[in-house]
Amino acid sequence: MTGPFGLLNPVWAGTSTAQLMSEDAVLAAMLRVEAAWAQTLVDAGEADPASAAAIRRISDDPALAGLSTQEIAAASPGGGNPVIPMLAAVRAVLKQTGDSDAALHRGATSQDILDTALMLLVHEAARGIGRDLRRAGEALSRLSHEHLETLCVARSLTQHALPTSFGLRTAGWLDGLTLSLQRLERAADGLPLQWGGAAGTQAALQDAFGAEKASAMTVALAARLGLAPMRRPWHTQRHAILEISSALAEVLAQLGKAAGDVLTLQRPEIAEVREPQAAGRGGSSAMPQKQNPVLSTLIRSAALAGPGQLSTVYAAATAAEDERPAGGWHAEWPSLAELVRLTGGASARAAELFEGLQVRPDSMQANLALSGDAVLSERVLSRLSGSFPGGKQALQQLLKRSAVEGLSLRSLLQEHLQAHELSTEGLDQLLDPTGYLGCAQEFIATAVADFREVSGAADAHSPAEGAADHV
Amino acid sequence: MTGPFGLLNPVWAGTSTAQLMSEDAVLAAMLRVEAAWAQTLVDAGEADPASAAAIRRISDDPALAGLSTQEIAAASPGGGNPVIPMLAAVRAVLKQTGDSDAALHRGATSQDILDTALMLLVHEAARGIGRDLRRAGEALSRLSHEHLETLCVARSLTQHALPTSFGLRTAGWLDGLTLSLQRLERAADGLPLQWGGAAGTQAALQDAFGAEKASAMTVALAARLGLAPMRRPWHTQRHAILEISSALAEVLAQLGKAAGDVLTLQRPEIAEVREPQAAGRGGSSAMPQKQNPVLSTLIRSAALAGPGQLSTVYAAATAAEDERPAGGWHAEWPSLAELVRLTGGASARAAELFEGLQVRPDSMQANLALSGDAVLSERVLSRLSGSFPGGKQALQQLLKRSAVEGLSLRSLLQEHLQAHELSTEGLDQLLDPTGYLGCAQEFIATAVADFREVSGAADAHSPAEGAADHV
Amino acid sequence: MTGPFGLLNPVWAGTSTAQLMSEDAVLAAMLRVEAAWAQTLVDAGEADPASAAAIRRISDDPALAGLSTQEIAAASPGGGNPVIPMLAAVRAVLKQTGDSDAALHRGATSQDILDTALMLLVHEAARGIGRDLRRAGEALSRLSHEHLETLCVARSLTQHALPTSFGLRTAGWLDGLTLSLQRLERAADGLPLQWGGAAGTQAALQDAFGAEKASAMTVALAARLGLAPMRRPWHTQRHAILEISSALAEVLAQLGKAAGDVLTLQRPEIAEVREPQAAGRGGSSAMPQKQNPVLSTLIRSAALAGPGQLSTVYAAATAAEDERPAGGWHAEWPSLAELVRLTGGASARAAELFEGLQVRPDSMQANLALSGDAVLSERVLSRLSGSFPGGKQALQQLLKRSAVEGLSLRSLLQEHLQAHELSTEGLDQLLDPTGYLGCAQEFIATAVADFREVSGAADAHSPAEGAADHV
Amino acid sequence: MTGPFGLLNPVWAGTSTAQLMSEDAVLAAMLRVEAAWAQTLVDAGEADPASAAAIRRISDDPALAGLSTQEIAAASPGGGNPVIPMLAAVRAVLKQTGDSDAALHRGATSQDILDTALMLLVHEAARGIGRDLRRAGEALSRLSHEHLETLCVARSLTQHALPTSFGLRTAGWLDGLTLSLQRLERAADGLPLQWGGAAGTQAALQDAFGAEKASAMTVALAARLGLAPMRRPWHTQRHAILEISSALAEVLAQLGKAAGDVLTLQRPEIAEVREPQAAGRGGSSAMPQKQNPVLSTLIRSAALAGPGQLSTVYAAATAAEDERPAGGWHAEWPSLAELVRLTGGASARAAELFEGLQVRPDSMQANLALSGDAVLSERVLSRLSGSFPGGKQALQQLLKRSAVEGLSLRSLLQEHLQAHELSTEGLDQLLDPTGYLGCAQEFIATAVADFREVSGAADAHSPAEGAADHV
Repeated sequence: MTGPFGLLNPVWAGTSTAQLMSEDAVLAAMLRVEAAWAQTLVDAGEADPASAAAIRRISDDPALAGLSTQEIAAASPGGGNPVIPMLAAVRAVLKQTGDSDAALHRGATSQDILDTALMLLVHEAARGIGRDLRRAGEALSRLSHEHLETLCVARSLTQHALPTSFGLRTAGWLDGLTLSLQRLERAADGLPLQWGGAAGTQAALQDAFGAEKASAMTVALAARLGLAPMRRPWHTQRHAILEISSALAEVLAQLGKAAGDVLTLQRPEIAEVREPQAAGRGGSSAMPQKQNPVLSTLIRSAALAGPGQLSTVYAAATAAEDERPAGGWHAEWPSLAELVRLTGGASARAAELFEGLQVRPDSMQANLALSGDAVLSERVLSRLSGSFPGGKQALQQLLKRSAVEGLSLRSLLQEHLQAHELSTEGLDQLLDPTGYLGCAQEFIATAVADFREVSGAADAHSPAEGAADHV
Repeated sequence: MTGPFGLLNPVWAGTSTAQLMSEDAVLAAMLRVEAAWAQTLVDAGEADPASAAAIRRISDDPALAGLSTQEIAAASPGGGNPVIPMLAAVRAVLKQTGDSDAALHRGATSQDILDTALMLLVHEAARGIGRDLRRAGEALSRLSHEHLETLCVARSLTQHALPTSFGLRTAGWLDGLTLSLQRLERAADGLPLQWGGAAGTQAALQDAFGAEKASAMTVALAARLGLAPMRRPWHTQRHAILEISSALAEVLAQLGKAAGDVLTLQRPEIAEVREPQAAGRGGSSAMPQKQNPVLSTLIRSAALAGPGQLSTVYAAATAAEDERPAGGWHAEWPSLAELVRLTGGASARAAELFEGLQVRPDSMQANLALSGDAVLSERVLSRLSGSFPGGKQALQQLLKRSAVEGLSLRSLLQEHLQAHELSTEGLDQLLDPTGYLGCAQEFIATAVADFREVSGAADAHSPAEGAADHV
Repeated sequence: MTGPFGLLNPVWAGTSTAQLMSEDAVLAAMLRVEAAWAQTLVDAGEADPASAAAIRRISDDPALAGLSTQEIAAASPGGGNPVIPMLAAVRAVLKQTGDSDAALHRGATSQDILDTALMLLVHEAARGIGRDLRRAGEALSRLSHEHLETLCVARSLTQHALPTSFGLRTAGWLDGLTLSLQRLERAADGLPLQWGGAAGTQAALQDAFGAEKASAMTVALAARLGLAPMRRPWHTQRHAILEISSALAEVLAQLGKAAGDVLTLQRPEIAEVREPQAAGRGGSSAMPQKQNPVLSTLIRSAALAGPGQLSTVYAAATAAEDERPAGGWHAEWPSLAELVRLTGGASARAAELFEGLQVRPDSMQANLALSGDAVLSERVLSRLSGSFPGGKQALQQLLKRSAVEGLSLRSLLQEHLQAHELSTEGLDQLLDPTGYLGCAQEFIATAVADFREVSGAADAHSPAEGAADHV
Repeated sequence: MTGPFGLLNPVWAGTSTAQLMSEDAVLAAMLRVEAAWAQTLVDAGEADPASAAAIRRISDDPALAGLSTQEIAAASPGGGNPVIPMLAAVRAVLKQTGDSDAALHRGATSQDILDTALMLLVHEAARGIGRDLRRAGEALSRLSHEHLETLCVARSLTQHALPTSFGLRTAGWLDGLTLSLQRLERAADGLPLQWGGAAGTQAALQDAFGAEKASAMTVALAARLGLAPMRRPWHTQRHAILEISSALAEVLAQLGKAAGDVLTLQRPEIAEVREPQAAGRGGSSAMPQKQNPVLSTLIRSAALAGPGQLSTVYAAATAAEDERPAGGWHAEWPSLAELVRLTGGASARAAELFEGLQVRPDSMQANLALSGDAVLSERVLSRLSGSFPGGKQALQQLLKRSAVEGLSLRSLLQEHLQAHELSTEGLDQLLDPTGYLGCAQEFIATAVADFREVSGAADAHSPAEGAADHV
């Protein structure tokens, strides 16, 4: 493949998504669209099968046919997009082989080809991302179950707040994953064919074939490519692009949140989790004792880049002036492509991260113990304020004193409560963090169930896949 | 109301959305949440009705009760959010009036109150925006019908490409509006209650009421507030915020695209449309001859600001670390609020713009004529390449020559075609732009139908409105 | 003052910068520009002193004169900016008091007034920000000196890397502060007057006074307002706005980096620093044991919002079409104003944060000890690889083994090195982290010196201050 | 070269900047840094010349030495950056050739190498951008002079405002170019060496060579590479990156503003300018009559992408936690590289655009005439309000009536003014647009002079170039 190889993008370097979105792949996808259209013309009795077959041959192996991605890229500034030089190259090949170009690009405009090609690639990439997110989600589901009752401390504004379970933490990550996966697949399923002709009127098609047949052929083309049917040309209404971009950016945000947590939790002083280790990952030759959380680092780097790319896609949609835009359209491609690569990379790293995440309940226990019984202050206040001498305010002061002076809350309470009919057992129960986990178990259960539903459902309704494979 | 008044934000200054999102309104919404929860406690037999009634009285008129938005704002840095000083102020009032605070904020955390209050406001704002977008959409539907056959030139990369109809242009704007309206209302319908307690476990609720009752009360609270039920606390999974923000940003992008077109089309040299005039709008005292397209200018200013605010919301979601975030959460509120205000302002201006848009078919005709018959080059090429002496290439050269030398394409063709059995009538027909509008009529019809469906559908399923009104 | 009060912006709520940028203050600044111009006309013998004096009276107390910020804001959509209704209001007052409007707004355009007014406010705000940054910088300088030799661990990708000194960490924060302060003040000193008239040609001025006098009056106006002289009108070349916005955003980024570190270092498991405590700050009524790092949280929230606002300012500059823009200009004001408020808030919080930062060398020592001697692996490798049996690779394996198996590096080394003429003292020295701090002291010294230079220098060359005060 | 080739980035596809920033070039630059350091060690008597020479040989032709950019990219996720696998590859080569790696990477950390390599490339790219901007600036200077008095209409909010000269319009574009060029070159001159070692302390260097010698060697390395000396390591204080990125983004914004104007002015209905034509540019095979403004389209596409990339760089700087960041650093590289490529592409297109821009004074005259005498309303009001019967208000109404009813302002005035001693010649003079261009000539002259100064100055002080060339 050609690049980009990702020398400066380790989050996606070497991933299948990167390969899928490579410059060679974009060229091939544009040719696939031309070939599919040629075949649609043939099927409708409107083009010579030989011409379509010739186009198909080029599309099957562009390099073999003599097309150079680098040369086409270099010629793209002439018309402002790569479709124009690609067509010139295809025509040159056809001429050389003595084939007709009658079935090539008939009634289409550059934007039809490039928009549709990108939809194809993004749709395919979304399926790969979905696979990785399912792997990550399965792993998080398993972790959530295994650690349903693994005690740890919940942190608010970085400080210890209440006890929670580690399973609820991973269920939270899972929740983010599930919601963004669902959004991504909905958006991917809605990615439509673009087929409007030079001004979005389908004038050339209608002129040649009549409105009805033009419409039928458009429907057939979408089906052949495995894309959603087009309600209308969307050269300057970029809804589909905005939806998929937003969904990709949310996947990045949700994975980025989880990766940020892992980075915190793997700090040596906290040490509640550890990234999976693998040969050649995370080591440092100068500091061999060090094991870097590289997967989370890479996911976070992708998440930091998401908002900027997303903002460009929205800015470009706003700038989609007239019937076909001068710049707004062009600004969109690289940001969309990079969002796809970033999400692909982050999802692949996330699958690996969660599948191998090492969990350290003993560190969690130790960290929870740092705050002592004070981590149950909320419960103590709620249960004892009524009966405490001096009421809520006095109890709050006692709690604060315990924290500031480092005194055992248990002893302080014991002293005060001897007269108030709370037994030692009652106090033990009151200060037992395992008894104050709220609805954690229910939340974990429904989070896992929601993931299963989304994960399964999306598998089912992948659109028109067979057709797509036979293009 | 307090401000912001929008002295530097004319796009939303003075609009109902701005009032809805004012600082007073945010305070009132937070109090509404507290009051609704107090009543929920009462209904569940868990709080004294008198305490709930006292809270309700404060919520009904915070200023009358002595709460000062300015003072609460000024005290908000102490805890990092306005809920803490608001509660202190409410407690002070209750103490003064001799009422109990037993029903106040029980088991809740600041984030529950503020997140839920913002969901209430955004939900309400989305309904107002929906109303304005429907007005704008009705106007665009009407324009699309009226100008189904109004000829104008379609522009690509700013240059004349093909004939189109003005109705198709407005149908394109309508399309953008419909798609973003649908997305907005779906997202608004999904805005959930936030109710997780200090660490997102509902520990305090479960400890006091048991898991089942806690769950039932949570459901009741959402229904009372007219919000979607909460599947789980989402303190650090900001899916709902990302969805609604993306939808708001898309409304801005789609309206911004249309407004950008109006700005172009109202240029004196183009003069195809003109903004509605109104007393006090668009005039210049120093240049009284000038009529500025102020509505479009304001819409565009909002659209330019959308991508940046959206990027902040996504960045904040990524930064939602631990169980409750230190900064990520806080960064989200102003950007979300501003996105709402911008969209509210842009929608209100768009309704006014499209309802009064003046259309000038004569200018469109004149502009189309600028390009002469050359605007039908695509058709000429498609129809005549086969029979033209020298084939397609020769015909392309003739077309180019006509353009460069300013020669009449008709005469050039006539000369060449006498020998090729094309009658003058045939040529007339070939070069008649009204005959080369493609599927414009079909596209207009389905665009209008889609708007009607979305517009009607969304009216129907506004959730739990009655309940919301009786909070 | 009017708001915004910052109910949703606790980072700047209640700060002097927020007051300086309030809607009342913007109105007053616009009037100050009008008054200064009126006086400039008088000084040039081109206007009646009585008219200028009347304008000055309104400018001195707009509310007293009957001007309402809210009403002017509400009328601003009419012309797309607040200057037009402000002028109408001023004229109404002048008419009422029987004064002439001859000296009002002569030859100016709305953009001249609003651009210049914002430059005045931003310039003034930058001075306040500079004061707070100096306070913060002094505190960091002091901390850097005090902790020149306070050992702590340097972290790379969240993991322990090498020993460092806490003073070098604070010197790093100081470095960021110094560089961004310098950039901010350079940009602020360059903020120019805007004075171009309706089309940026100064046609009205030149027509009335001739080019030379127009130029002299423009220079006089800049001096009177304490702004940099204008080389040319910059209605559509927004260089000055881009520079100051970038500088503000860098202050946010640098403070945000430091605040992020404080948030990490204040985690209970790390506990190396603690924010200053103050009555009413950081407490939680439900969890009285908790002390939230509120200052850092607020600074970080501002830093998260910076990039989005900055991107809007750049997008707006790109959209500054024609001779005066339709939307690009308008989109810029709120983002610039919010960048100023955010930076003002963050700087004020940073001054408080660093002045009162509590440092815990014992925790630092304990954290450093967590990694044991392994934190000196780099040194061990460099010093002993040559002589170690098996060379570098064998030594790397030993280091890794020590880390993985938790064995004392010292013992492992001792065993191996008995035969290699390294004495126990030599080993002690080798493994003493205080001996491996590199150039930390030099770096601290120059960082503090750089701050002093920048801090002092900027004090000196504040431009034309006297003049500014007497407007 | 390897890519990226820019198949989806026609604005920079095929440019020298793209080649300069290619993945091969990044690899080569990293090796150049290693080689320069090895030589610095040799010069200081601290390394074996043979080892340095071997490194130098690999650096001179990495591919020949057997290094594969693709393989190194694919291995980069292991450690999170490409330096680690690059070093492994270099060591493998050295082993094969029997050379020592003693001079390789001694005391350095990955971040030192990659940061410094990017500074080298950005510095070099800035010089190329500067050359293209100078070409563009020369062309704009020439246009400004040639069209010093070419009348056209100044547009405000898209509407006709006043007469101006086309030379002033191009001088405005020039102004933007000059200011951003100056900023870019200042920032580029300040790009520093990064050399801090694993924790930014230079511990390894100081341990080996002592502080003084370490410092001297650091200075020597910067000089050898032609970079600014490093005041201190800046692993987590990204000032230099923020400055250069902001400057690049401003170049994009300023060129984008100008390109946006060209797009408007080349609209067929306005037709005041036309992009230079060239074989293979801007044509359309389907619509041969069409000439697309491709250069401006590409520049605008780059300008639309600038703000998002800039926001990522700032977000990354904020996220630069601890002593070396986990993600914040990594997110910065691709955005910085893309900003450079975008600016390089936009500058190259701008040079071509302005050097060949076709200007059509006749269209300008015709457009100006569209507004008739009304374009002088400001002047009429200023000159005649005093003497006009009914005063200013009556005159304003007359002007408005003239506009609305399409009546000749001249006739209306003539009628009214016969009694007021304004001769026909006086009226002619009053309504002559050439007499109302204000200070246009002065502004043009100083804009051109400023460009010359900046253009010349920057040529002079390119730092340490000789040294750089001999690395």
